[in-house]
Amino acid sequence: MPTSKKKGTQTVVFARPPGISSWASIVGPKEGAGPWGSYFDWRLNDYLFGEETWEKAESKLLRETVKLAISKGNYQESDMELLIAGDLLNQTIASNFAARDLALPLLGIFGACSTIAEGLIIGAMLIDGDCIQRLVAAASSHHYTAERQFRLPTEQGTQKPPTAQWTATAAGAAVLDGLAAAGPRITAVTIGRVVDMGITDAADMGSAMAPAAVDSIKRHLRDMGRPLSYYDLVVTGDLGRIGKTMAEKLLSHEGIEPYSNYKDCGVSLFGLKQSGVNAGASGCGCSASMLCGPLLKKITDGDIHKLLFVATGALMSPLSSWQGESIPGIAHAVAIEY
Amino acid sequence: MPTSKKKGTQTVVFARPPGISSWASIVGPKEGAGPWGSYFDWRLNDYLFGEETWEKAESKLLRETVKLAISKGNYQESDMELLIAGDLLNQTIASNFAARDLALPLLGIFGACSTIAEGLIIGAMLIDGDCIQRLVAAASSHHYTAERQFRLPTEQGTQKPPTAQWTATAAGAAVLDGLAAAGPRITAVTIGRVVDMGITDAADMGSAMAPAAVDSIKRHLRDMGRPLSYYDLVVTGDLGRIGKTMAEKLLSHEGIEPYSNYKDCGVSLFGLKQSGVNAGASGCGCSASMLCGPLLKKITDGDIHKLLFVATGALMSPLSSWQGESIPGIAHAVAIEY
Repeated sequence: MPTSKKKGTQTVVFARPPGISSWASIVGPKEGAGPWGSYFDWRLNDYLFGEETWEKAESKLLRETVKLAISKGNYQESDMELLIAGDLLNQTIASNFAARDLALPLLGIFGACSTIAEGLIIGAMLIDGDCIQRLVAAASSHHYTAERQFRLPTEQGTQKPPTAQWTATAAGAAVLDGLAAAGPRITAVTIGRVVDMGITDAADMGSAMAPAAVDSIKRHLRDMGRPLSYYDLVVTGDLGRIGKTMAEKLLSHEGIEPYSNYKDCGVSLFGLKQSGVNAGASGCGCSASMLCGPLLKKITDGDIHKLLFVATGALMSPLSSWQGESIPGIAHAVAIEY
Repeated sequence: MPTSKKKGTQTVVFARPPGISSWASIVGPKEGAGPWGSYFDWRLNDYLFGEETWEKAESKLLRETVKLAISKGNYQESDMELLIAGDLLNQTIASNFAARDLALPLLGIFGACSTIAEGLIIGAMLIDGDCIQRLVAAASSHHYTAERQFRLPTEQGTQKPPTAQWTATAAGAAVLDGLAAAGPRITAVTIGRVVDMGITDAADMGSAMAPAAVDSIKRHLRDMGRPLSYYDLVVTGDLGRIGKTMAEKLLSHEGIEPYSNYKDCGVSLFGLKQSGVNAGASGCGCSASMLCGPLLKKITDGDIHKLLFVATGALMSPLSSWQGESIPGIAHAVAIEY
């Protein structure tokens, strides 16, 4: 059956599913101390990673994660034809400067915290279409670059509401290879549309993104003619505890049950024991590192055979919030099977 | 011959070149009063476009340009399977909010002023690969949103150096259709890599981007085995007068001559008569509106048969400049033939 996308659907089903041949994740101290610490390739001891500023540290985090994904797959950097990358920083400078140092052709993307899924979706389509044979998709976030850009100076020590999430210091990178002989494969992708239910509280992004996540899950299942239970695990990006509860209610409302196989990276990354993270984790690096660490490891270990990875993004900026706009959410879904 | 990309090259040559079946451009008052005014679909009388803020006006500019490109091609919005869009605003909010109102699946991109070329490149590859049949690629910029985000409050009336460029208030959108029977076609694309020659002056972005433009032109011609003269016109995005002169010197240094058929959208948009624009125009909307206005019109009129469109981007942010970083440049090349 050739690669196909029916008119009116948002899902592309691949004739020759592109392989995820290698991957890597690097996380910060707090993420490394969480329940999944041993699943990440590197755990940093501090937030500067030998750099002068947090922003330079984030760019290095992304760059080193890409290099690690390449070397772990026994590739050379010159084997990669393309880098597809994005991050949360204004003008995505973490990605731009990483691409400069890597000297790889760059397609820069912005999907907020859904970025790694957007990169995998574009990458899988380019490989399936024979335009590119090998590429890296990557995304990063850094707690302290996000705090000062989106919120308040951390020195101020402002108390956060319980709905707030902790931006992860983390990066994930995956090599897609059209010639991969074995390994996990991307079998189908669903491109998300923007869903905005009018939430305006920038300290409750889980609630803003949950309707988008459910919209993309619903469309994916309908387009594929599958129940949720087809997947061993359906995992959203970074809804956190509040957003995940809302997503469960919305799934139930849509008649998509049972959802005992549904989890969220924002809830999982720090687990239940870590303090100070309120509703959980967020940031491009949250779902990127969970995918390119624990999730792909569990897939190759045979614990998960069919994964639906649904990374979620809140597409506002501080300026749009100041101007009274609500928070547009998006979610991109990637079916990974092995 | 199937779609191909030789290893080690950055150029994809399409087996069935995707058609540009419809396009539209909307520009601000200053752009509309320039030498190409009559080539744009709409010329705005003011910078607010009926909105309360410049940012909301930019998002409307992008949205209305996309709608116009769709309706000019006798399409319905529901015929479009995807919007690929980007802009210069932090977290690309012009695009995100436009996508919300259009209810189209979104792949958000960031390539600074090279954005429209990045969108056409991704779009052409997705259509060639049979993943998508019809999509819109779009990009926008707005003089006043860019001034206050990247520079100084306009109320301050700061004098600018002669190397500075005037961010265009403009948007361009193009519909790519894999089933288009006639019209201009994208025959090959060259994905740019980041080139950074150490320029640190954010008021001289033309000089920062010129080496990237020449790198992509050189790689494109080498990958295709073509002289520059194969094209009736080679046009860069927004190098402006200083950057264009530098690009000409670099082309000459690379042995790529003659370049009498080489022009730059940043020089052309305002022409020579408009005052206050210093070295010329810039912004995502500069090359996007020039392509989706004068250039595609001249192609369908038969004045240009073969165009190499090389949009250029400066990938820094105010923060990266404050932290002492130089300005990384990128340029993506799109060959359009009719």
